[in-house]
Amino acid sequence: MAGLASTPEPPYYAVIFASTTTDDTDGYGEAADRMIELAADMPGFLGIDSARERGVGITVSYWESEDAIARWKADAEHTVVRETGRTRWYAAYELRVARVERAYGFDTTSTP
Amino acid sequence: MAGLASTPEPPYYAVIFASTTTDDTDGYGEAADRMIELAADMPGFLGIDSARERGVGITVSYWESEDAIARWKADAEHTVVRETGRTRWYAAYELRVARVERAYGFDTTSTP
Repeated sequence: MAGLASTPEPPYYAVIFASTTTDDTDGYGEAADRMIELAADMPGFLGIDSARERGVGITVSYWESEDAIARWKADAEHTVVRETGRTRWYAAYELRVARVERAYGFDTTSTP
Repeated sequence: MAGLASTPEPPYYAVIFASTTTDDTDGYGEAADRMIELAADMPGFLGIDSARERGVGITVSYWESEDAIARWKADAEHTVVRETGRTRWYAAYELRVARVERAYGFDTTSTP
């Protein structure tokens, strides 16, 4: 992972996806990578941050609008993979859609 | 980590903290654990999800209100640790405050 998502000034939207996995994670890593690749090609996609540690995963994707999130949710390949997630990979998940109102940060590694 | 944060019906607020660390992470793990413990004692705290993988960390804490977030930010011990984070542990971070508008999930492990 190269670094953190770089997003424009708020407001924009965040999809916060927190999950725990079952013991059956065959194919999960490849599918997760493919979903990030697919999301990045969607209109209105702004960026994504993702980490998984001891079975707990958090992926936050950033979007220009609620419409962009709805289109991503409706994407056919995404829909098929979501179904596999629900039936095989995930023990539990929680998805939250939130409107980012303010943001700030710092980066010691960026060149001015 | 036992599981995922359990939060009430929206609306509520999320603080999305994404970070990358430097090579100097001495004391970081203990401080991060202590901050979670401290946050959990703050009024208006609803829950927290956290994961770190290959130097990228994402912590999302959930709060009843913007006021609760402001009190957490102003907490003296939190302020001191934040300063250490900025000067030593973090290569970069991005903090986003967002209003959670809808949420859904599932849990195959919960008893009805």
